[in-house]
Amino acid sequence: MDTLTIENLIERKKVTMISYLDEEGFPYIKAMLAPRKREGIKTFYFTTNTSSTKVKYFKENSKASIYYVDENTFEGVTFIGTMKILTDEKSKESIWRQGDTLYYPKGVTDPDYCVLAFTAEKAYYYHNLKETKIVL
Amino acid sequence: MDTLTIENLIERKKVTMISYLDEEGFPYIKAMLAPRKREGIKTFYFTTNTSSTKVKYFKENSKASIYYVDENTFEGVTFIGTMKILTDEKSKESIWRQGDTLYYPKGVTDPDYCVLAFTAEKAYYYHNLKETKIVL
Repeated sequence: MDTLTIENLIERKKVTMISYLDEEGFPYIKAMLAPRKREGIKTFYFTTNTSSTKVKYFKENSKASIYYVDENTFEGVTFIGTMKILTDEKSKESIWRQGDTLYYPKGVTDPDYCVLAFTAEKAYYYHNLKETKIVL
Repeated sequence: MDTLTIENLIERKKVTMISYLDEEGFPYIKAMLAPRKREGIKTFYFTTNTSSTKVKYFKENSKASIYYVDENTFEGVTFIGTMKILTDEKSKESIWRQGDTLYYPKGVTDPDYCVLAFTAEKAYYYHNLKETKIVL
């Protein structure tokens, strides 16, 4: 399986689908913005609000998945792994962009701004109804 | 909250995002085709392969969610609830379409064809970063 095919799918999507679990163990899905930074297809970094429901739930249960799908090419990729919440200055600075003050008025040190770091343990690529396990 | 806005969002999407849990409690996301039938925004019926991984996992844990997002209008809707697997003749016939033999060569009685019936218990609508709980 060619990693470039998967990276290309990730890069052309404006949003990332993210899944997490609530306090009763129900899975949720939500769209997030594209990752700000990636380490290959192993670790993905996202900006989010510290006060958001998903941060609350990830603190209780780090099990997560992220998903990309292209409805036109019939391709999809699911990454299963764990989510960490990073609130240290260095992590927050590393993916900060100027326009982010729109969401976090106090800037890079805004306590309501944090980083979600997703690390994949397993991944599957789907194309034309065929599933391929990806070696990470 | 206007139900029509939500039904309109569902109707214009070609795919449904679906979430389920594996044997270790990790949430998965996958795209499915649009529901074949709906009872308002409470129950959704989908066709699927009986041999698929998600059917296996739904048998072990019925907790599920389905999700629709429109990246252009910044709208999203998440439904949280439970998934039932229906294999009785009446349910299978009720959403069968002629072209389905492409996926289920033995026709409507194909043992690899079954119906997924999702019933929502909770729902949230997102628009421009604002979340609204939907009364079901």
